[in-house]
Formats: sequence, C-alpha cells, structure tokens
Amino acid sequence: MHISIVGITGYTGLELLRLALNHPHVTVSSIHATKEVGVQISDIFPHLKGIFDKEIQVFDSEFIMTHSDLVFFATPSGVAKDLSKNFVKNNFPVIDLSGDHRLSPDVYLKWYKKSPCTVDIQKRFTYGLSEVMNISHRNRFIANPGCYATATELALYPLISNHLIRVDSIIVDAKSGLTGAGKKLNQSSHYVNVNNNYVTYKLNKHQHIPEIVQTLQFFNKSLQNIQFSTSLIPVNRGIVATIYTRLENGVKINQIESTYKDVYKNKPFIRIKDGLPQLNEVIGTNYTDIGFVYNETTGVLTISSVIDNLIKGAAGQAIQNMNLMFNFDETDGLILAPLYI
Amino acid sequence: MHISIVGITGYTGLELLRLALNHPHVTVSSIHATKEVGVQISDIFPHLKGIFDKEIQVFDSEFIMTHSDLVFFATPSGVAKDLSKNFVKNNFPVIDLSGDHRLSPDVYLKWYKKSPCTVDIQKRFTYGLSEVMNISHRNRFIANPGCYATATELALYPLISNHLIRVDSIIVDAKSGLTGAGKKLNQSSHYVNVNNNYVTYKLNKHQHIPEIVQTLQFFNKSLQNIQFSTSLIPVNRGIVATIYTRLENGVKINQIESTYKDVYKNKPFIRIKDGLPQLNEVIGTNYTDIGFVYNETTGVLTISSVIDNLIKGAAGQAIQNMNLMFNFDETDGLILAPLYI
Amino acid sequence: MHISIVGITGYTGLELLRLALNHPHVTVSSIHATKEVGVQISDIFPHLKGIFDKEIQVFDSEFIMTHSDLVFFATPSGVAKDLSKNFVKNNFPVIDLSGDHRLSPDVYLKWYKKSPCTVDIQKRFTYGLSEVMNISHRNRFIANPGCYATATELALYPLISNHLIRVDSIIVDAKSGLTGAGKKLNQSSHYVNVNNNYVTYKLNKHQHIPEIVQTLQFFNKSLQNIQFSTSLIPVNRGIVATIYTRLENGVKINQIESTYKDVYKNKPFIRIKDGLPQLNEVIGTNYTDIGFVYNETTGVLTISSVIDNLIKGAAGQAIQNMNLMFNFDETDGLILAPLYI
Amino acid sequence: MHISIVGITGYTGLELLRLALNHPHVTVSSIHATKEVGVQISDIFPHLKGIFDKEIQVFDSEFIMTHSDLVFFATPSGVAKDLSKNFVKNNFPVIDLSGDHRLSPDVYLKWYKKSPCTVDIQKRFTYGLSEVMNISHRNRFIANPGCYATATELALYPLISNHLIRVDSIIVDAKSGLTGAGKKLNQSSHYVNVNNNYVTYKLNKHQHIPEIVQTLQFFNKSLQNIQFSTSLIPVNRGIVATIYTRLENGVKINQIESTYKDVYKNKPFIRIKDGLPQLNEVIGTNYTDIGFVYNETTGVLTISSVIDNLIKGAAGQAIQNMNLMFNFDETDGLILAPLYI
Repeated sequence: MHISIVGITGYTGLELLRLALNHPHVTVSSIHATKEVGVQISDIFPHLKGIFDKEIQVFDSEFIMTHSDLVFFATPSGVAKDLSKNFVKNNFPVIDLSGDHRLSPDVYLKWYKKSPCTVDIQKRFTYGLSEVMNISHRNRFIANPGCYATATELALYPLISNHLIRVDSIIVDAKSGLTGAGKKLNQSSHYVNVNNNYVTYKLNKHQHIPEIVQTLQFFNKSLQNIQFSTSLIPVNRGIVATIYTRLENGVKINQIESTYKDVYKNKPFIRIKDGLPQLNEVIGTNYTDIGFVYNETTGVLTISSVIDNLIKGAAGQAIQNMNLMFNFDETDGLILAPLYI
Repeated sequence: MHISIVGITGYTGLELLRLALNHPHVTVSSIHATKEVGVQISDIFPHLKGIFDKEIQVFDSEFIMTHSDLVFFATPSGVAKDLSKNFVKNNFPVIDLSGDHRLSPDVYLKWYKKSPCTVDIQKRFTYGLSEVMNISHRNRFIANPGCYATATELALYPLISNHLIRVDSIIVDAKSGLTGAGKKLNQSSHYVNVNNNYVTYKLNKHQHIPEIVQTLQFFNKSLQNIQFSTSLIPVNRGIVATIYTRLENGVKINQIESTYKDVYKNKPFIRIKDGLPQLNEVIGTNYTDIGFVYNETTGVLTISSVIDNLIKGAAGQAIQNMNLMFNFDETDGLILAPLYI
Repeated sequence: MHISIVGITGYTGLELLRLALNHPHVTVSSIHATKEVGVQISDIFPHLKGIFDKEIQVFDSEFIMTHSDLVFFATPSGVAKDLSKNFVKNNFPVIDLSGDHRLSPDVYLKWYKKSPCTVDIQKRFTYGLSEVMNISHRNRFIANPGCYATATELALYPLISNHLIRVDSIIVDAKSGLTGAGKKLNQSSHYVNVNNNYVTYKLNKHQHIPEIVQTLQFFNKSLQNIQFSTSLIPVNRGIVATIYTRLENGVKINQIESTYKDVYKNKPFIRIKDGLPQLNEVIGTNYTDIGFVYNETTGVLTISSVIDNLIKGAAGQAIQNMNLMFNFDETDGLILAPLYI
Repeated sequence: MHISIVGITGYTGLELLRLALNHPHVTVSSIHATKEVGVQISDIFPHLKGIFDKEIQVFDSEFIMTHSDLVFFATPSGVAKDLSKNFVKNNFPVIDLSGDHRLSPDVYLKWYKKSPCTVDIQKRFTYGLSEVMNISHRNRFIANPGCYATATELALYPLISNHLIRVDSIIVDAKSGLTGAGKKLNQSSHYVNVNNNYVTYKLNKHQHIPEIVQTLQFFNKSLQNIQFSTSLIPVNRGIVATIYTRLENGVKINQIESTYKDVYKNKPFIRIKDGLPQLNEVIGTNYTDIGFVYNETTGVLTISSVIDNLIKGAAGQAIQNMNLMFNFDETDGLILAPLYI
C-alpha cells in the first residue's frame, strides 16, 4: 500500500517515516510540509541520505488521494482539522496523530483554545487506542491518541471498566522525555535548561487531561475528572505514568493482576510485568509495559505504565491502527526488540 | 573551630569537605576512612590537588577529641552507631549524617536490618531538621536527616502541624539524582542503565519512610503512615518531592500560603515560591524551595519541594546544624547562589 | 539458519540477539553464558519478556555444532581463543567479536597481556572489516573488528591504500559512549562520574591501536604507527573518530572525495557526507558516515567517522559478515533507518 | 567597591552576578539589559529570589559612572564596542567579556563580520589572560579572553614562548559544553539534538582561532596559524582542549614538565597535573588544569587543558582581572573547591 505523510519535519513525522520504511507492505508515496517545499528531506535531515531522499511537496489533497491509500497527519494541533476535510468528504482514509479529532468540539475549544472541527466530522473519527477500541477495516478515520493519554488509559482501562478502583482516588504523576514537547524552540527545551533538571509544567492544564477523562468516562460514567501532573525528565524519548489509586471496597489485589492479564491476553504490544517496568525496557518499540505494587499499609495501589512516546505514543500506534484498518497483521513493521542500551 | 570528618571518601564526606573549606570559621583537622589510610586525599581525588592535600587517617576517637571540636560521620549506615559511642560517653559533639541515630532502635532494626544503637544513646541525639527542631548550643548530638526526608518533611510540617491537610491522603512521588544512591557500584548506578532511563525502586520500602512518619507524627498524632515512592532520574544531584494531598474540611487555599510564609518567615534557607520550583533553582545551595498548586476540580493540592540532596539533604544541613550548635550565623559558609546552569 | 551466541549477557551479546531477532533468515538456537545458567534471559533482562525467553545454557561446543550453523562469541577477551578451538578443529563457522583472533599472537600478548591463540589458528581467521576484506562464503572463521578500529580503518583505508596522505602525520582523537567500555562495574562507569564529564583514558595504550596499525600496514607498508587517543563522552552509544592528517605532496583535495566515493561506491553501509557527520545520524544502524574538511591555511585534512559502536562496531558488522559468509543479501536484518531522536 | 553588569540575562552575565555575590569586597550596584527593563531579575530567574532581587535597568553610562567603580560587559559581540565608548573617554574601568576588544580591528571585521571598534580604542584595551598578561592596577580596560582561547593559550604559552614545540605541528581538538554556545535558541541547542550526540561545528571557522593565533604570535613570531576544531559535548559547562604537537629538535620531555611548573609556579588558578585532567575536576571553579603525556613511539605530545567555560573561560577570569586591577587578593571571591559531583 501507499501512504502520504503530512507534517514530515516534526519528530512524529520523522518517526512515522522511519517506521514506515521498516514496514513490509508500505511505500511512502509523498511527504508534505509547509516549509522547505521542493527540498530533499535528506538535505534537511542528513541521517536519511541514501535511505529516503524524496522531495518535500506542498500539501495537495487531490494528489494524495490519487497516489496514496492513506494519509497520516503528523501536524501541530489546529492543522489537520482543516486539511483533512477533503479526505473525509471523499471517504479517503485518514489517521490524524494530532489532537484535532480526539475531543468533542466544545472540549477541544476549551483546552486547545482553537476553533474545533464540526461535531459531524469529529463523530466520524474513531479514537485509535488500538487495544481498547477494536480498530478494524470498518474504520476510515482515526484520531490517534496522545502520548500521555495512551500510557495512562491503557493502565487504567481494565481497572476502571471492571470497577476495581475508586475513580475519585486517581492521581497520575506523569513524566515525559523532550521529544514529547516537540521541536519548537523555547528556553524550556534548550539543552542547558533540561540537562540536570526536572521541571513540572502545565500542572492541571495539560490538554491530554480531557482526552483521558473522555476515554475513561466512556467505560465508567462515575469518573468525573482526574488529577494529572506532567513533568519533563532529561531523556529524549519516553513516557512514565505513575498512577496512585485505591481499590474499591471488597476488591482483592489478585483481581488486579488477573484482570490485567485477562483484558490484554491477546494484545501483542501490552506486557503486564512482575514489579514495576523501567523506561528503557520499551524504548524503540511499540510496547506498553505495565506493572503495579500494592501497599497494604496505606491501601494505595501504585501502577507504572511506560511507553516510547514517539512509537506507542504516536507513530507506532498509528502504524498499528493502519495495520488493523488494512487487515495486515497487527505487528507488521512493529516487531522490534527494545533498544534497551 | 576544628572539625574531623569520618567517611571522607563517600559523596557526602567529599561534599562536607567542600563546604567546610568554604566556611569562614572552620579548619578541617583530620579526615578518616577505612581504606586508603595514609594516602593523600588529593591523590585519590585529584580535583582537590592544591586545595586540600591532607592524608587520610585511621579512625581514632581520642585523636579526634584532642584535635577537633566536632566530629561528622559521613559513613554508610551501621558504622556511626558503634564509632560514635566514645564521643557520646565523653559528651563530645557529634553530627551523624547517616541513618544510625534517627530512628527509635526497634524501627531502625526493622527498616535497616542492622542492630541498632541503644535507646539511651538514641534519645541523646536530636533530629537535626534545622528549621523545625530549634537546634542550638544546647545540642551536642545531632542525627542529621535523610535527603528524601528533608525535602518531604519541610514541605509537610507546616500543613501537618496546623491541621490543614488530611493526613490519610498524602501521596509522595519523590525523585532523586544518582549521588543520592551513593558510590557503591552496581548495575543500577552504571551510566548505561541510568542515562535515558527512569527507574522506580524500593517502592514502599525506602528507609526514609519511617523517618518521615516519625517526624510528622511528632506534630500530628493522627498521621499513621505515608504513601512514598522513590525513583532515580538521570541527574547527579537533586531531590524533587512531588506531594499530593487533600485539604481538611473548611480549609481555604489561602491558608496554605499564609501558613507556609508564617512558619518559615525567618528561615533563610526556605523559599516559598509562586508556582512550582524547578530542580536546577537550588542546585549548589542549601535552599529548600517549596511551591504548590491547588486543583479546584479534583480537590487535590500538589506541593513540590526541591533540594540539592548533597547540601540541604546532607552536608549543607550538617554545616547549618553546626552553625546553630556553635553560635555562628546560621548561614556561615552556606551563602551560595544556585549554580543554575 | 540457526545460530548460537556465547556471552549473551554482555552489551554486545544482547545487541547481537536484538539484531538476530530482526533478521529474516535467522533463528537463535541457543544462548550461553558462564553465570545464570538455567535462568531465562528475560528474567534477567525483562525488556525481552515475551520476545525471547530462552534459558541460558552452559557452553557446550558439541551441542552448538549439532543445533546451529554458526557460533558467535561475544565474550570478553581471553575467552574465545580457548572456547573456539573445537569449532576450528571441526571447521564449524565462528564469528569472534572479541579481540582474541584479530592480532598476531605476539602482538596480542603484548597489548592484551594474555596468552594468545596459536599462530596456526590465528591465521585461519579472517579480519572481518566487511567492506575492505571481501568476506564471502569461502570464509569460515571471522575475527570481527573492534569498534574504534572499525571507525578509524574505514576512514583511513581509501586514503592510505591510494597513498593520498602522509602516513606519519595521522592523529586520531577518538571518542566513545559508555557501552564501548562494557558492563563491568568500576568508578569510571558510575553514572555520577560520567555525567557532566569528559575523560581521556588509556592514552597511547588502547588495545585497538595495534589492530589499526596492522590493518592499515597491510595496505601501505610505510605506515609504522599511529597517534591515537580515546575518550569517554556522556552518551550510551557511538564512536566518533576525528582524524587529522596531511596530504601527500601533489595530492589535490578533490582526489580525496573521488577516492572515497569510488572505493565505497557499492557499499550499502558506508556514506560519504557533505561536511562532517553528527553522531546521532548513525545511532541504531550499521552505517559508517564519513565526512572531511580541508583547511587551506594549515594544510590539515580533518576527517570525521561515526558509527554505532554496538552495531557497525560489533554486532551489526558481525551480522553483515554472517550475511556475506552465508550468501544472504549483505543488508538482511540490517535495514534500519537511524533512530536519530 | 561597586560594579555594574551590562547584559545580565545571558549565561555569562548570570555567572558574573553569582560570583560577584560571593565576593567579599563587591556590591552589585546595577544590572542592565535591553529587554525586560524594570523587571526584577528574580522574577525572570526565580533561583535568585531572596538572594538578589534588583530591577533590570536600561543601559545608562552616566548612571553607571556615578554609582559604580567598574562596568562589566557580558553582551553578545557587537554591543560593547559601541556602549563602552563613553567609559573609555572618561577613563572609567571596563572589563569586556565579549570579543569586541580582543582583536585588531581588521581581524575582528574578518572573523566577526561586524564593524570593529577603532584602532585607538582597541589599543587601550589589554588582553586579560590573567596569568600571562600581568594585569595590575595600571590597567583600566580589559578585553577578557574567550573560553576556548583561555584553555588553549594557557596550555600552549609556556611551551611556545620557550620554543619547546614545533609551532607548525599544533592541532587542537577542543570540546565545549552547551553554555559555551549561549542562550540563543536554535535546533543545535535543542535538548533532543544535543543529548546522545556529538557535533563538530564551525570547523576551521571559529572566531577564537584568530584570538589564539594573535596571542601566541606575540610570544613566538614564527607561529602563523593553528589547526583548531570545536565540538559540542552533552554537558552544560566545560571546555576540554586536547592538543597534539611535536617537540622541537633536542627538547627532552622533562623540560616540558619543568617549564610548566616554573612558568606557573605562583599562579593559584593553574594546576599542572600528573596525567591528564578530567573535566569534572574544575567545574564550579576558576582553575585551569593542564596535563600531558608524551608518546615515544609517535613523537607526539598530547596536552589536555580543562576549564569551566563560564568561570575561568568568562566570569571568573573577569573577577580575577578585577581583583588584579583593584589590588585585591587575586583569589578573592574565587576560592571554590570543584563541585566534582
């Protein structure tokens, strides 16, 4: 199959390209960006020299629909909602990695402070949390989940949907590497301010909060909100979501393990660990590793969920969704052992 | 005055030496270790060449009492409880930076899994949380607090002692740099396993947990335990204690700020910040920076407390306690602007 | 085909496993180590859970020859020279990633300070610098090059063999990430001593020096020795060899470029760059990126050669040699775009 | 004495402030910048809260001359040459940390591509390489050396001026931490592009090259140019200058050591090491550590010179020069043991 990538010069676009080049059934037909049109991508990013040397093209939906079978949007928020319209109208497959089609329009407006897509269009998009949402060939339009949201939702979904934890007790202390903050230049991404530092930012204000609430509410109506903090750690890749919660009355700790294993038993990219996972055990892969420890003394269940934010948190899950949409094997192009060192 | 340092070759011993060399009233009379006796410290640590070239001596309590006015123990746990006996017997001032005299002997035995000092001796030691425990010339024996404990207790003490927060709601997600884990060689401190990684360890089992509980209980009997997690972040120095808690019924958020400012108003090393502090704002200093944000939606108060684990979390607080014991200015030798970059 | 890996728990062994799992024609039959025999590799390295869960076996050359088609030695120096004897006797294919079969026995003895293999055996091994040594199905025994040696030799071979540079003018300032120093625990690999630091070590004494001299001498007898320094930089992966040299009389700078491009024109893993390559442009791949800049004012040619030490500098080149020995496509299992971020 | 700092918000300005606050005889009267005038410096940099809370003032030479005894320029190149004119006219002491007064105007124009100060003014400035240039109370105007230049010149000056090495053989492979590249935002200082990377930049084009040549030529006319490369390593602070050179005919290696020790025997901030220094042995200090190793086989002398680029390479040397100009002890405010860990 042939694909096009819009927003090729961002971290997510580059990672999508890297994974697509490793996919047995995919050819990248065209790459698009607003800047540097006409320039070979490998002139901007010399690591691609000899591997992928195509020119960046101006965005053109008709061209893409003629030459590709699917378009990925790896664009900043506020772009895909406009540029995807023509694809939707023509029922041409779209996977949007940005936040533009994840939230109901009123919630999007409130948290992203940008004009949303229409309710109609948003409803045609399926939230692409692959293991939970049963993505299949019936889906044409995917809103690919955010990185923090993926790590958090996959850890909480089995427990929330089975009413094993108290939904008003959830506290998430999430940490991200710097690729999660994107390529934009500002003092907070300058090397000197990140190295040797730990910075909590957007506390209670991160735009993935409503995404998580919306998804979890779908499975348990009593969940109203979530305490969620986001910090930058000095690494390039990775999300660690440390989750604290309390068990529902009567729930035994062994139900937690059996539920996780049961819910995710045929999911090749989710691993339930003994003890807590380390971040480097998933880097370079599409895995979500989840571990938990219960504290008898305090009654608090600690869950840790780790992903590579660029793969399972973005480009990898997008490829996984493409595989499911096009009836490929779910793991095609994504069979990678962790880099680890 | 003259001081001796026992355990000079560890991170804490080296930092104590560094700070002592910067102190206007202190001369380092002797340095002690079990290994490399007779070797110049600057032959082992060439960065000290020309600055401090004394030989390492074998431990000798009589020698120390003859030549110094105070002894610091910067030794691993299990050492100071034996080596300090003779000093205590002779009423010679001791500041123990290890955990040996912080806990009641039964609790020490349980968490450190080592035979404790006697109840008698432990009672003669004062817990050296400088801003809280009113250290003065009346103190002869100080149990200097642990690094995680310092950051956490200073953040919670004003709220706990004034009954502003629900003591059963406290969850601490604490992070430490690698100097906090000491010089001992193991795979978890190998560069390759720390760089690009985030590792939660000793979950619910860290030996600073009973220290924190014991200190806070002293000010609020209803506190029974604390949910406390510890993780390693890829930095050399620093502790970040992120604390989640709920307000007691009827407490207003402005009481939090006014209480912090009131309790710490004459404390030169505690700064109450607008918003949350960043780790690099205290590195190289004896400051504890504390900030907080209340979430109206979830009712959770997030507090962040940051310190340099080697300074306020160890050697700096030890110097501060020495200053208070010997009627120096509290800030002598500790007036340092943060390194920051 | 089936392979066995001896020395699975080191960095090189783990990377070899990771690459082998990605190879379309390879099955890993058995893994061997001296410690933790009988334990599942994924119990020691949880990142492999569900990916590769085989037990570690005791070394047994008969077992390997029965169940595999090739054995890799990813062992510390001094091991393979003994353990490989039976394979050589039986003409069973061996790729030795250690230094045991690279050097003539007298030179090995001098630089490794260990008793060498016999001259006879050493002569049966071919030095596996894939692009230079014409590895093919005729080779049964490969001495896989060292990481520093690979980066340096591939940069110098075209110029040395074509007499374009003065062989007495070569100065190599080489830098390595910490995986190059291995898993062994010592203060110089402790996180705290590597982070924020730059350390030059083994100056003029690194055991790759005679390897480089021996290889280059083969192509230009007048080269007698080489000035070579080795430093550790705070990264996990990567070698940067910065080479300074002067042109032979009459040589024009455009001959440098044309020679590089000509010599390596059909070599898929060598890229001649415009300008100097950055380290992150090869991480995660088997590429060697080489760039150069000539200084008209000083007459010095600066060459920079970068590789991923664990891949092109070890496991990747070993797989490449296996591909050449077994008539696979040279790039099988090694088609990976750089991780880059 | 009272000082003013122009360019307070850059890395060099902040470090100068940090050191000045630690100086026993200095009061910072005023701080100046073009942006954020009227804002408290501690509102922009919260790490200074409670330590130094002055407002940033607009630049005003008359105000400074009325309220201070000395002005420091910590401005980007191209600023001090204009703003310092009025001070020079009034014979008011100036220490310029930028490159504006280091080079003869024609050389400045060529390398900085900016219009230079006049020859007259440039001649009134003394190049402030403290240990070499005999700075004293007779100096009113100091051109403070660049960071790469300081490390390189201090290593080469004793050998060059005593004709111990061949001046046409010098090759410098210099590395810098990211503070050396300044606060300006660009992709090359983004955390993601620095972490795990090693980048050689401005090869043969760095503006410190003519500065080094000019200084060394002053002591040995036969030196015409220098081969000099500059790379970024993933650390915040530090310069490592690795220098390769050959001895003059007849020179013995023991002359190298005796010359270094002789030339620098009363220089408190220069340490001649046994073996090569490590970068972390000088961080946080004004030291220059120099070590060297001679290779009998190749005839190459390797010298390594390490400094903290923000201190000895900028603000520390500026304070040292101020001490010398104002008859303070050379080490006042600069007695700091290395941070080391």
